[in-house]
Amino acid sequence: MQIIRIPRIMQDTAKGYSLRGKSTGFVPTMGALHEGHMSLVRRAKQENDISVVSIFVNPIQFGPSEDFQKYPRDMEGDAEKLRREGVDILFMPDIAAMYPEGFVTYVEVGEISGKLCGAFRPGHFRGVATVVAKLFNIMKPVRAYFGQKDFQQTVVISKMVKDLAMDIDVVTCPTIRERDGLAMSSRNAYLNEGHREASAVIYRCLREASDLIKSGIIEIQAVKKAMHEELLGEPAVSGIDYAGIYDPETLNEPSEIKEAILLAVAVRIGDTRLIDNIVINVKKER
Amino acid sequence: MQIIRIPRIMQDTAKGYSLRGKSTGFVPTMGALHEGHMSLVRRAKQENDISVVSIFVNPIQFGPSEDFQKYPRDMEGDAEKLRREGVDILFMPDIAAMYPEGFVTYVEVGEISGKLCGAFRPGHFRGVATVVAKLFNIMKPVRAYFGQKDFQQTVVISKMVKDLAMDIDVVTCPTIRERDGLAMSSRNAYLNEGHREASAVIYRCLREASDLIKSGIIEIQAVKKAMHEELLGEPAVSGIDYAGIYDPETLNEPSEIKEAILLAVAVRIGDTRLIDNIVINVKKER
Repeated sequence: MQIIRIPRIMQDTAKGYSLRGKSTGFVPTMGALHEGHMSLVRRAKQENDISVVSIFVNPIQFGPSEDFQKYPRDMEGDAEKLRREGVDILFMPDIAAMYPEGFVTYVEVGEISGKLCGAFRPGHFRGVATVVAKLFNIMKPVRAYFGQKDFQQTVVISKMVKDLAMDIDVVTCPTIRERDGLAMSSRNAYLNEGHREASAVIYRCLREASDLIKSGIIEIQAVKKAMHEELLGEPAVSGIDYAGIYDPETLNEPSEIKEAILLAVAVRIGDTRLIDNIVINVKKER
Repeated sequence: MQIIRIPRIMQDTAKGYSLRGKSTGFVPTMGALHEGHMSLVRRAKQENDISVVSIFVNPIQFGPSEDFQKYPRDMEGDAEKLRREGVDILFMPDIAAMYPEGFVTYVEVGEISGKLCGAFRPGHFRGVATVVAKLFNIMKPVRAYFGQKDFQQTVVISKMVKDLAMDIDVVTCPTIRERDGLAMSSRNAYLNEGHREASAVIYRCLREASDLIKSGIIEIQAVKKAMHEELLGEPAVSGIDYAGIYDPETLNEPSEIKEAILLAVAVRIGDTRLIDNIVINVKKER
């Protein structure tokens, strides 16, 4: 596995592959790799000639009071995992290489960036869209892989790719879960034992909402109320950013349930903010 | 000359060239082509295997009270000029193809976009950066050509390309002028005979400022005052948006004159807004 730290060298390397007709599959990450990331990596390897993973804890997607400083970092462990998986290139730029002095260019994906997580993390999706656009320009991938756990991120990236005619397939991969259903996330490392157990409530809440809908309860406010009650029944839940039913494209709360819907939750367990979601096809499943 | 109107077809065509190792030189325009545009086209042809010109009057770079509707359009005349020049591809998308319903993604180049013309045309450079980013993604050019007449545009595009690691050479070509010095511009078509004659004052003002500096007058406010006086001496000048000395990178007014400086002017002659600039290297020229 080749480790590259300089954007220009990464770009020239990627260009070389592209000119030789080799397809690149790209997995952008912030490191602290877990099985969710590794499922993306395996898919990128399967579907492309060359697999490239980036590890970059992107400062511009964190708010000033967020966890940029304490975000888990394990460069050596991560590199070892990727090496064992047979990844071709690990790209690990430093902050000054990605955002040199005088950097002023940002990609804004309007509307959807301000909803759900965006309402609680102003500027977050601007930071995500900008770094992903830059990484795409460096990597020239044919396909890029994202986890469904960050559902809104996949919507924002897909919209950016479509609006700006980026010639890249955005592939969304299923959320990988712990045995009790907790979605894998680098931020799970923040949880103490009690909070780790309590956090199973998130997926339980999503499943129960899904069951309610499948059983025929399609009144949105009723389902939403049940979700909030389930979450607030867990004492470790210190706050709910949102929990409800959304249109998977617009991220708006629909007026009625029909076809594909997104059930999504963002809660705080102690000081840790966790998100999860499931998409259900009401027509098919009922 | 191939005429393409669908972004996806243009992208596939460009990708085909790129995969065969052919370099594309790209000239984005809003049409109403004059000798300034044609100088870019000739250079794109000289320096690349394939030359692509786009004609797209980009609505999102016009303010609500600006001249989008009346902007000169001459698709047939333009196509004929490009055909005679031996251009390989003319890309002429319609608005719905570039900005389909639900388009929400914009590229913002901070700081410099708000200065000079940006201060008088809010949103203009956001519109420029966004359309150029999208055209670059469609065209995958090795080199893209812009006229120095729109100096701030070249600064904004170059900054975007650098910040987002777009793998494209931005080539700035000299301003082409009429015999009396007026910079060629599609908007010159708005001028009646009297205003057309009067508009020679713009380049005269720039040359005189340059002469003042070369003669040793390096007090910025003195040069600026002389520029304003020259412009206001022409009765057809109905307003000055700006006229002065700027740093060619930051577009700020420098505290003192040293090395390369930008002399730039934006005025209204009747209802027509015209811009022009020259860059002088003080060290070399004095």
